[in-house]
Amino acid sequence: MKWGLASYTLREFNLEETISMTKRIGIDNISLKSMHLPYDLDSEEIKRRAQTVRDGDLNFYGVGVIYMGSKEEVDQGFNYGQDAGVDTIIGAPNPEILEIAEDRVKEYDIKLAIHNHGPESENYSGAKEIYEKIEGFDEKIGICLDIGHIKRIGRDPSKVMKKYSNRVLDIHIKDVSEATEEGYTVPINQGVIDIPGFLKTVQNCNYNGILSIEFEEKSEDPMPEIAESIGFLKGATEVM
Amino acid sequence: MKWGLASYTLREFNLEETISMTKRIGIDNISLKSMHLPYDLDSEEIKRRAQTVRDGDLNFYGVGVIYMGSKEEVDQGFNYGQDAGVDTIIGAPNPEILEIAEDRVKEYDIKLAIHNHGPESENYSGAKEIYEKIEGFDEKIGICLDIGHIKRIGRDPSKVMKKYSNRVLDIHIKDVSEATEEGYTVPINQGVIDIPGFLKTVQNCNYNGILSIEFEEKSEDPMPEIAESIGFLKGATEVM
Repeated sequence: MKWGLASYTLREFNLEETISMTKRIGIDNISLKSMHLPYDLDSEEIKRRAQTVRDGDLNFYGVGVIYMGSKEEVDQGFNYGQDAGVDTIIGAPNPEILEIAEDRVKEYDIKLAIHNHGPESENYSGAKEIYEKIEGFDEKIGICLDIGHIKRIGRDPSKVMKKYSNRVLDIHIKDVSEATEEGYTVPINQGVIDIPGFLKTVQNCNYNGILSIEFEEKSEDPMPEIAESIGFLKGATEVM
Repeated sequence: MKWGLASYTLREFNLEETISMTKRIGIDNISLKSMHLPYDLDSEEIKRRAQTVRDGDLNFYGVGVIYMGSKEEVDQGFNYGQDAGVDTIIGAPNPEILEIAEDRVKEYDIKLAIHNHGPESENYSGAKEIYEKIEGFDEKIGICLDIGHIKRIGRDPSKVMKKYSNRVLDIHIKDVSEATEEGYTVPINQGVIDIPGFLKTVQNCNYNGILSIEFEEKSEDPMPEIAESIGFLKGATEVM
């Protein structure tokens, strides 16, 4: 398995801290959210910061979640992703501009993984709602499967993974306190998601992307919880 | 499996911090080293502090490692253990006073787990060296198997556990950087010990004691490493 970190987890820390904290707990892949790589930096500065991440011996594979409400925002997002040198944009383009997004996916050769955001999302609450909208588009448009939000709308992450695995491009792995809108993230395997079962499903689906931890609580001091989480994931997959 | 913490890991923190840090990473059992419960406190203060630990919802099962060089030190150690209310003293009594220790073990009904301390220890470098000395004594005198020190003298923790499991009363679980005197502790499964293999052996031996993490590095900021370690152990045993 390839483990990553969704940098929203470390939103209270700067980029340099985020790099060293991620490496410290043995995570090799990272996707950056905008607080660590602001959209309004100029192209050279984005490239410079991206290089800092790679100099820190991290595979900087993704950016996002990027919300795209217009053609201009799609263009901005793909230029930003290209400057960052990532192969995946985790995004949420409005459904009516998916055709434009498809053009950019081909033009830039960058994948677009649409993030399911649970009950709070009008268009992309779950993987099914994404799949129905992207089914006919290029396969480089797919899903960033956030299993916490899947659980929060009362669905089973393993079943969802099995059903849509051919279009899953990225995974946000987390656990949640309850299978309702009120559910919040807890350390891996301390909530209501069957984590070992999900890991087996991921293995059986021959998923070869990254599983990125996203932990949303204790933003000012999250290291023990994310360290415990990556430890659990590595321990479980080591003996699976 | 029952997971614990050997409080030497948190030697730069006070007792209250140690309690909350241990609970935060989901560890339910603790053995205290003297910096958290000094030997020279009076009996009432030892009882009061022991109650603080238990009020923190921790099973305060052990004290030590206590070195015992004379009859007086054996007596002091057992009085201390009794005041602390623990069922196990992790200790290192000089071999010539083992008979006195046996008397106290029976009198106080507290187990004495002798800690193997690797190449630095004259009498108790490994489990074999302990076993040969205690074999004829009461079974409440046994071994606190420190698998890091076992590895540091070039032996296989799983083989040692299999051979002496009938006398293993406590386990210090850790990983080490190399199988020599130079080896130092690293987060679980990042060193040279086959941790999943050892866990399977422990399970097969029907060991029903506690496995306490002891991490000796980064004493001023050890939480990420011990959190990752307990996560790994829980993940591995969850799917074993």
